[in-house]
Amino acid sequence: MQADNILITGGAGFIGSHCVLVLLELNYNVIVIDNCSNSFCEKSVSKPEALIRVEKLTKKTLQFFQADIQNCENLRNIFKEFKISCVIHCAAFKSVKESWDVPLSYYFNNISGSLNLLTVMNEFNIKKFIFSSSSTVYGEPQFLPITEEHPTGQNCANPYGRTKFMVEEILKDLSVSDKEWCIYSLRYFNPVGAHPSGEIGEDPVGIPNNLMPVISQVAVGKLKLLNIYGNDYDTVDGTGVRDYIHIMDLAYGHIAALVALLQENNLGVFKAYNLGTGSGTSVLQLINTFENVNNVKIPYKIVERRTGDTAASYCAVQLAKKELNWEAKYGITDMCRDAWNWQSKNPKGYQK
Amino acid sequence: MQADNILITGGAGFIGSHCVLVLLELNYNVIVIDNCSNSFCEKSVSKPEALIRVEKLTKKTLQFFQADIQNCENLRNIFKEFKISCVIHCAAFKSVKESWDVPLSYYFNNISGSLNLLTVMNEFNIKKFIFSSSSTVYGEPQFLPITEEHPTGQNCANPYGRTKFMVEEILKDLSVSDKEWCIYSLRYFNPVGAHPSGEIGEDPVGIPNNLMPVISQVAVGKLKLLNIYGNDYDTVDGTGVRDYIHIMDLAYGHIAALVALLQENNLGVFKAYNLGTGSGTSVLQLINTFENVNNVKIPYKIVERRTGDTAASYCAVQLAKKELNWEAKYGITDMCRDAWNWQSKNPKGYQK
Repeated sequence: MQADNILITGGAGFIGSHCVLVLLELNYNVIVIDNCSNSFCEKSVSKPEALIRVEKLTKKTLQFFQADIQNCENLRNIFKEFKISCVIHCAAFKSVKESWDVPLSYYFNNISGSLNLLTVMNEFNIKKFIFSSSSTVYGEPQFLPITEEHPTGQNCANPYGRTKFMVEEILKDLSVSDKEWCIYSLRYFNPVGAHPSGEIGEDPVGIPNNLMPVISQVAVGKLKLLNIYGNDYDTVDGTGVRDYIHIMDLAYGHIAALVALLQENNLGVFKAYNLGTGSGTSVLQLINTFENVNNVKIPYKIVERRTGDTAASYCAVQLAKKELNWEAKYGITDMCRDAWNWQSKNPKGYQK
Repeated sequence: MQADNILITGGAGFIGSHCVLVLLELNYNVIVIDNCSNSFCEKSVSKPEALIRVEKLTKKTLQFFQADIQNCENLRNIFKEFKISCVIHCAAFKSVKESWDVPLSYYFNNISGSLNLLTVMNEFNIKKFIFSSSSTVYGEPQFLPITEEHPTGQNCANPYGRTKFMVEEILKDLSVSDKEWCIYSLRYFNPVGAHPSGEIGEDPVGIPNNLMPVISQVAVGKLKLLNIYGNDYDTVDGTGVRDYIHIMDLAYGHIAALVALLQENNLGVFKAYNLGTGSGTSVLQLINTFENVNNVKIPYKIVERRTGDTAASYCAVQLAKKELNWEAKYGITDMCRDAWNWQSKNPKGYQK
């Protein structure tokens, strides 16, 4: 039996590259499109460094196209060349903070980009789609743990979250209007960690916004101090609680979704799945674990709350377990160990 | 004092053409961009018929560009050529029914198109924007009359309505992130009627979806029968109640918004205004009025309710009156008379 061709957009990014690795390990044919706006690529080389390392780790090859999904012709050329079974759409801008600085760019990249991709898929009658969504679609949680039935879009705290919500709404309408579409939306909680080899990991451009990359960069001396935004929340120790998930668990979650989606028998499907561990960890707990596991010190100071931050967020994991036969295996200790393994081996990320 | 250059997208459409007429009467310089996807244009002629007639009626000239807002270069060329004071953005697909058939086209045209336009405006530092929104953003009314504070986006019954809601959300974020943007969103209720001359009016492509064009086409013999979708609603006579507004009132509403927006002193503005009469009229009331005013018969039959239709919808008009100094002047009798005047003079619309 011929292996399925899987197209992954944004495949050179943090989440994309780990998904590509697992897809290759499982013998899928992987086609990556990435504009490299957020991933390091040597000028003289044909692939981003992350994907070169993925090929080394897996001893497999992938097809890479440096191109933007804003350009329909780029997409059409790929769909002409390969008979794609499913598209995993990871390409998006992802910084909450930046989305307030340049909302138009966020809407343009994340929504117009998705619409281009879906329109070209439609032209080629390719209608299996996995969407990189986010827990931000839930906004301020109305109850915990957050189930997939939790309302979405009502209190999204930032333009980034709204782009994810809006694409989900578009996908729902698409699945209602055309019964050939089968769409799974994966709502990531807080992906952290790195491949256990330490060869690939998170390499944010500029100053990171997310907690784990900041912790890692403080540990490696790239940043001096960690800011904790508020310690007066109604949580175990006053600091914000989040549902961190190991990037390898997240990657396997994509595989579980892909396997189920390729076998999906229902017509006109839109399903959303939480990808998280179901457990909350506070900022201080994460710092303490990181310090203990890795035997490093993380100096921090408490500063004011950030607008839009919520006290606690963690998800119900039952639906993914039941329907995708997937659950997270790694704990916070693994996440801290692997994040540090990556960062200490690659203090400058993918740059040499 | 030099007159302001006003760019109006979709200026050849029903709403656009009436706005253009009033803008010209008030001596604005009007630049129209329209792709003519929904307006009749003789092949040998440089302008859509609606705009040729507008020029005749006003004895003024306008600048017309047959181009799509999806193409940024088209837009850039216009902004290079003219120093635009304000953009009135009427270009959009508008059929509720069709938006269920081809939601991707609706999202692509209405959202990506708006994002293109806003992005190019941003490049040229043009940041006064009037958006053609719709009462559909309110979804199923939670209270009547509907004020501008009514929640939006929670129960939009169709993709068309969601495109309007999403663009409003984008505009809100834009006005928050960049204080130079001043944006008014005009939430139209049910625009009907035509210019009193009968020279311009509504000319839907294909079978119309909205009530008044169907009534007119039945009266003129183009359609045989009017379907009334449900007569068991909790309303005055069981048929659906809507807030119809004369197209000339709507056009003057745009002028009122434009005058206020050009004088807007606040920074980072997003304001939404209802444009309606504040009175509800049932389907049967509209038919009866049309028959009496125009001395014609409108045969109809009662059929099943349509999914997504609401019993009654009409708006609170105080905000536009207070802040824009605008209110509707025409009543249902005028709307029926002018709709029929247009239709009977132009049984095939703009086609000769």
